[in-house]
Amino acid sequence: MSANATRRASIIGTGLIGGSVGLALRHLGWHVTGSDADPASAQRALELGAIDAVGLDPLSELSLVAAPVSAISTEVRRALAHTAGVVTDVGSVKASVVAEVDDPRFVGGHPMAGSEQLGVDGASADLFEGAVWVLTPVAGTDPDHFATVDAMARSLGADVVALDPNRHDALVAVVSHVPHLTAAALMTIADERSDEHAALLRLAAGGFRDMTRIAAGSPSIWPDICAENREAIVEVVDRLTEELARLKALVVADDRPGLIATLERAQAARRNLPSRSVQPEFLAEVRIPVPDREGAIAGVATLASDLAINIADFEIAHSSEGDRGVVIVLVDRAVAGIYQQSLVERGYRPSVRALD
Amino acid sequence: MSANATRRASIIGTGLIGGSVGLALRHLGWHVTGSDADPASAQRALELGAIDAVGLDPLSELSLVAAPVSAISTEVRRALAHTAGVVTDVGSVKASVVAEVDDPRFVGGHPMAGSEQLGVDGASADLFEGAVWVLTPVAGTDPDHFATVDAMARSLGADVVALDPNRHDALVAVVSHVPHLTAAALMTIADERSDEHAALLRLAAGGFRDMTRIAAGSPSIWPDICAENREAIVEVVDRLTEELARLKALVVADDRPGLIATLERAQAARRNLPSRSVQPEFLAEVRIPVPDREGAIAGVATLASDLAINIADFEIAHSSEGDRGVVIVLVDRAVAGIYQQSLVERGYRPSVRALD
Repeated sequence: MSANATRRASIIGTGLIGGSVGLALRHLGWHVTGSDADPASAQRALELGAIDAVGLDPLSELSLVAAPVSAISTEVRRALAHTAGVVTDVGSVKASVVAEVDDPRFVGGHPMAGSEQLGVDGASADLFEGAVWVLTPVAGTDPDHFATVDAMARSLGADVVALDPNRHDALVAVVSHVPHLTAAALMTIADERSDEHAALLRLAAGGFRDMTRIAAGSPSIWPDICAENREAIVEVVDRLTEELARLKALVVADDRPGLIATLERAQAARRNLPSRSVQPEFLAEVRIPVPDREGAIAGVATLASDLAINIADFEIAHSSEGDRGVVIVLVDRAVAGIYQQSLVERGYRPSVRALD
Repeated sequence: MSANATRRASIIGTGLIGGSVGLALRHLGWHVTGSDADPASAQRALELGAIDAVGLDPLSELSLVAAPVSAISTEVRRALAHTAGVVTDVGSVKASVVAEVDDPRFVGGHPMAGSEQLGVDGASADLFEGAVWVLTPVAGTDPDHFATVDAMARSLGADVVALDPNRHDALVAVVSHVPHLTAAALMTIADERSDEHAALLRLAAGGFRDMTRIAAGSPSIWPDICAENREAIVEVVDRLTEELARLKALVVADDRPGLIATLERAQAARRNLPSRSVQPEFLAEVRIPVPDREGAIAGVATLASDLAINIADFEIAHSSEGDRGVVIVLVDRAVAGIYQQSLVERGYRPSVRALD
């Protein structure tokens, strides 16, 4: 291919993820053709500039399948049959599709970016900036094709993490699938009890709200995910049940050192949870107690902008009870002192620690 | 008591909560005497203006025990013995202390306000503004003494919710104690797996971070809470285990309608979780997709201030994968349209719905 040839891609499934990849690749100069099971969605993608044309381009160097999990292997095989380039997908579960397709030109993928906004109207060219994009090469994967997908993901600003497909599925069961089911279970129990005691929901403060927030998401994607990743999900649910039984035994036995040891381990692990996609060795964590009110939050955030300090991560830890919160921001270690001092001058009481 | 007499209170335990009550009552003109098991803490409370004097004031109309859970009943009895007024406490568990003390002059209490900042240095006079403050009167409680504590809590800006002590304990097991243990269990499992697979933590996105955030809190208060509320905690852990087993069975059986029904119930319940201390009938929820970056968050929040729109509640829903988020603000229904229009003019894509 000459250096001046336009690179060509096809997007199969022009929803939020497919549309965002289309927008981003077109910004980078690619020619993007797109299709969707719902023709109106492909038409809308065309209107929004996410694709150049509707259809499947036989000259595609790269085809990206962003269809629902249950349709992925069929669409991947179709793209392999009609193009000579590499085919990748964006499904949340990987082992089954990788085993089913089994082709040197297929590279499984899972960009860990999304949004509550479903559909191409929520698409954005910078959706993948700083996101983790998992790729799941196997022994039969062609290295050049892998390199093409890897470079495409990086050109969209993503951090590529290569994992064995089974390992990917085991890990997302731990950090995504079982937490989602657990949030639903906690919310179900609260809902049952609130039928009897309306006061219950008045006692549900920030900590409970944080824990159950993901349960507010759309249920529609979960039957497929649960079916495709059944084994890993069942294994982690069993492990969670076991861990809850162990905690219950500590409570029943009033085993205080045992309880403290468990909670201290969890505390240390949570505090060291790395900021997404940023190396912790250059960051400091600034914790700023604030009321959960708009003025204080804006003040803390805009002060950083005023000082030209980039915020690598921003979260609000509600206290487990009540309305107060702590804004936790990660900033470059070199400027943490300046930020802290400016906050103190404005009446905040921040604490700063370097991340290990 | 004449209208001009200075009202007198004693605070036993001058940490975050006791110190905040002291500051707030002094702002309201009360004379506040305070003590602490650690004399340095009482001294610091004096320096910070949280108390007028160190000690226990025999003339106290109201004494508030803000000691650790295991010390509460002893301190309540001491306050009852040395004063003629009402005595209340702020412990997280209520049935045991109410049963142990059993005195018409004692009113159990639990202000649901706190902060990660431990100690009197984190105290603030407005800590209880908008917070729920549970009081647990029983058959033997003197109504006038109850009214005194109720009025004191309301004068600090709190919403008083009166509950039977056993009911209080059963409800906080659901919305606070078991969620905390569950967050620790999820974090423990992730930590185990991350020892083998360092990539795991790179896949831990916003949803997992939200769910485990409370596990970063201090473990020290939990052995007492678990000991005092053992029965309710065990009951809710059992119910959660049962619910997880039911979900697992749905996954194993690939029961898609069953899974969808469960997740839809949880979704509806979570979406209708009322904003703390605000009546939902006059509010609208505005959902604004944003990158999790400081500029966008500040923009959304300060725009409301610029328009003189009061934000009743403010939270950030991280998507279950990736860095994006949705800012969810609750505003008065009457001004939601103006806010939405101004957001659209600034390039946001908010959606608005009235709360049921």
